[in-house]
Amino acid sequence: MIRPATPTDVPMIARLIRELAEYEKLAHACVMKESDLHNHLFGATKYAEVLIAEDAGAVVGFALFFHNYSTFRAKPGIYLEDLFVMPEYRGRGHGKALLVALAKLAVERDCSRVEWSVLNWNTPSIDFYKALGAKPMDEWSVFRLTDDALKKLASS
Amino acid sequence: MIRPATPTDVPMIARLIRELAEYEKLAHACVMKESDLHNHLFGATKYAEVLIAEDAGAVVGFALFFHNYSTFRAKPGIYLEDLFVMPEYRGRGHGKALLVALAKLAVERDCSRVEWSVLNWNTPSIDFYKALGAKPMDEWSVFRLTDDALKKLASS
Repeated sequence: MIRPATPTDVPMIARLIRELAEYEKLAHACVMKESDLHNHLFGATKYAEVLIAEDAGAVVGFALFFHNYSTFRAKPGIYLEDLFVMPEYRGRGHGKALLVALAKLAVERDCSRVEWSVLNWNTPSIDFYKALGAKPMDEWSVFRLTDDALKKLASS
Repeated sequence: MIRPATPTDVPMIARLIRELAEYEKLAHACVMKESDLHNHLFGATKYAEVLIAEDAGAVVGFALFFHNYSTFRAKPGIYLEDLFVMPEYRGRGHGKALLVALAKLAVERDCSRVEWSVLNWNTPSIDFYKALGAKPMDEWSVFRLTDDALKKLASS
């Protein structure tokens, strides 16, 4: 079962984000504060939305996403920032159900596409995404400006 | 001079988007309707914001961006979808001025980063971005689900 998250889901979403960071070998980069996450999902300015996957009434996974925008199509899109299913609940279709629900939302909202990023070593996920018809954007590189480099440019 | 776009800038922004698509050898993919662009920038649901670069009172470039979100940091970020300066006005600092303005906005809005994508063959831009301190996210691949594959997943 897939449903939109509510404010009472925030502690569980925070736990799942930390589990995802462990899985991606990026626990050191996960410095999220649960109160900030709460504000950004359910406060005055909403930066993202969450779908929850349940199995027999228990939360077992989530998809966190926001809208991006294609100028060439002049249409919004959906960017899936995080997709995670607890390891002990994998292989039961929860990941696919979350992606199907997201694709339905994209079509309902007249979005031209759904996009997300995957670590290059994560071949099980890459194979899964390709089987769904997703294409890697191999001809593009993403650049990131953060921390000291961002502050330096901002003050130049 | 850098300033936020106003509704009267939309025809010029549309022209610059088409010029960018030509430059990226993606003119065939640029099917944007100006009225949709207007609605998405200045209508009830705003999907993106635009900064305009002027040279002696004339519009010569733009940056179109929206907010993304980092769960690991629990902070919004800025995603720069399009950055373009007319070829005849390059080399005068307009591109850098747009990026500096965007970095300032990111710091003001408590964003953890600014991100964007570049075509791998565009080495002049890649060199420029690296010189500003931006890092390529080489360990990640972006996947895109669109058109028939998106509809198929949505209806499964």
